[in-house]
Amino acid sequence: MKKITILGSTGSVGTQTLEVLSQHPERFELDGLAAGGNVSLLIQQALRFRPKRVCLATEEAAREARAALPTGIEVLQGEDGLVEIAGSGDADTVVTAIMGSRGLVPTLAAIEAGRNIALANKETLVTAGHLVMEAAKRKGVSILPVDSEHSAIFQCLNGERREDVRGITLTASGGSFRDRTREQLQGVTVEEALSHPNWSMGAKITIDSATMVNKGLEVIEARWLFGLDYDQIGVLIHPESIIHSYVEFKDNSIVAQLGLPDMSVPIQYALSYPERLGNASGRLSLAEYGKLTFREMDFDRFRCLALAYESGRLGGTATTVFNAANEVAVDRFLRGEIEFLAIETVLEKVMEKYEPIANPGLEAIIEADLWARRTATSL
Amino acid sequence: MKKITILGSTGSVGTQTLEVLSQHPERFELDGLAAGGNVSLLIQQALRFRPKRVCLATEEAAREARAALPTGIEVLQGEDGLVEIAGSGDADTVVTAIMGSRGLVPTLAAIEAGRNIALANKETLVTAGHLVMEAAKRKGVSILPVDSEHSAIFQCLNGERREDVRGITLTASGGSFRDRTREQLQGVTVEEALSHPNWSMGAKITIDSATMVNKGLEVIEARWLFGLDYDQIGVLIHPESIIHSYVEFKDNSIVAQLGLPDMSVPIQYALSYPERLGNASGRLSLAEYGKLTFREMDFDRFRCLALAYESGRLGGTATTVFNAANEVAVDRFLRGEIEFLAIETVLEKVMEKYEPIANPGLEAIIEADLWARRTATSL
Repeated sequence: MKKITILGSTGSVGTQTLEVLSQHPERFELDGLAAGGNVSLLIQQALRFRPKRVCLATEEAAREARAALPTGIEVLQGEDGLVEIAGSGDADTVVTAIMGSRGLVPTLAAIEAGRNIALANKETLVTAGHLVMEAAKRKGVSILPVDSEHSAIFQCLNGERREDVRGITLTASGGSFRDRTREQLQGVTVEEALSHPNWSMGAKITIDSATMVNKGLEVIEARWLFGLDYDQIGVLIHPESIIHSYVEFKDNSIVAQLGLPDMSVPIQYALSYPERLGNASGRLSLAEYGKLTFREMDFDRFRCLALAYESGRLGGTATTVFNAANEVAVDRFLRGEIEFLAIETVLEKVMEKYEPIANPGLEAIIEADLWARRTATSL
Repeated sequence: MKKITILGSTGSVGTQTLEVLSQHPERFELDGLAAGGNVSLLIQQALRFRPKRVCLATEEAAREARAALPTGIEVLQGEDGLVEIAGSGDADTVVTAIMGSRGLVPTLAAIEAGRNIALANKETLVTAGHLVMEAAKRKGVSILPVDSEHSAIFQCLNGERREDVRGITLTASGGSFRDRTREQLQGVTVEEALSHPNWSMGAKITIDSATMVNKGLEVIEARWLFGLDYDQIGVLIHPESIIHSYVEFKDNSIVAQLGLPDMSVPIQYALSYPERLGNASGRLSLAEYGKLTFREMDFDRFRCLALAYESGRLGGTATTVFNAANEVAVDRFLRGEIEFLAIETVLEKVMEKYEPIANPGLEAIIEADLWARRTATSL
């Protein structure tokens, strides 16, 4: 029986993780749950899955949960509660599905406590890949990717020697605007940007998918997860999102992972690894699809992706700044403050102004993050 | 330094195996070579690669080789020589690229001598899969597939648990007549049948590719190589031959192996496994291909494939009979004796007349083979 703690249980990945648990009650047991402000859903989840502990972001939310839950379930609160739920308890695997930079400190706490990490928080590796991977190595814990692309690469590397890898390619659907030119992107609305062709996701990540920032963050994550150079990581446009990503080996052999676009498969794999379990998701029929299509990534059309590579190559705090500036820019676009194409301009200008710090500790990372947010807000 | 012996060195797989060896002189050393009647090529190969021993099919050919080769190279002859070269010497891996049922006995001899087998002889598993896999298991040797489809499956299974496999799918280009209806196959010429769209191969296998018998034999081989039921083995038409085959796991995840159609990659992999080495073959660019297409296999259109599955499900000597009858039928077609579609009719009639023997020994296999050849010749 594997014990699981979920940080961010009320979001998209969190709720799907609980669905996976509910399909395999004989394999998984819930140890802890943490959510932000969605108290009513967290209460429902806790009543259904009976974890030992839950955590909510505020004192008020925690008080509401305490009133609704039986006394056997301990209710923690705030950043300290999050770190406690990540680091103490009996979990074998901690699912880090919290949004934003709040995910980093509890992830590090979980690693220090020797838990395997099912990683769904991008910021963890984007801002502190060097710290996280060093800690994971030191503690002998596995970082199991939940993103479909990274899960694909992880699966393709099963049983292979790392020194035989020439490189990897992350596939990209191209997002909601893949067939538009830059000219056609002038003045697009928030609603248009929010309709993604293949994956149903939150607003922030759907915009990041349209700007290709999402793929850029995945490239940076892949660099840390798989210990590759940026030259070894390619991106290919594959509108159908059926080949989730692939590895090329030095004998020119390519191994790819395929499936219908359904997050429950990589989520379950991160929990069940190295085993595989049955799954209620759909089976892929290539004959039904009839064809899969591919085209080169256009780095001029998707300049945010080029900027992501640049920030990755600069290293140190540059990726933190890239990520934080993007969060602000997307937020400003969603609130109607700036145009879609201005997301890119904001990123470019923030990056231009910044001098990255190499091998930063947590404080330097937080400082760089705050600086980028201030700067991106003021542009 | 791995020592390699090649049975069938002057054929397509044999010569490509020597090319692989010549690219990696620091990794591979040639121990033995065996060929049929192409004495002059075998002499050239022996002078270039300096094996310890060679073998030729006849006394006359062996005499010619003895006269041309330095005394340090021992020259054997006939079936006994073949068994000796397979079973004695220092080879780590024996490449069994001999055509036809002659490959079986030396392959068993190599297994009994504890050599790993790089398997390129179809008949070995089609006629005696139960004997070969039992011997390989008993002696603890690996059967490493050289066919691109089986090599793909073998690679996709790296690091995976067999009990997690739901099934495999072998891809098929569809052969030279994939876009023709049965009506359009009436009266096709030998020349038309011999032009294969993707792979450059010998005449027999090109015809087998057009009738889909080749894929049927691969299905039977896969059953033995990977210990699957016939219900777990599918065939999909994929005209580009880029996805070489794939495995579906019980979590609905599919892992596929891809590459340009180039036999040197699977040949090299069978020799270098579990490592991978650099390779002079071309690199696949999916963006350059632009699209990959797929369609369901049509078992009415390709009735030989349905017959192959039937013979496999019957088991015992039925697959031997299927294979031997096909060899005769293809030979008769190539000599202009029967029509293309009559290959299928011959197979069907021979199969109808036959009562298979379960779990046969070598003698029963040889007897079934001879009976099928006689019957197929007389139809």
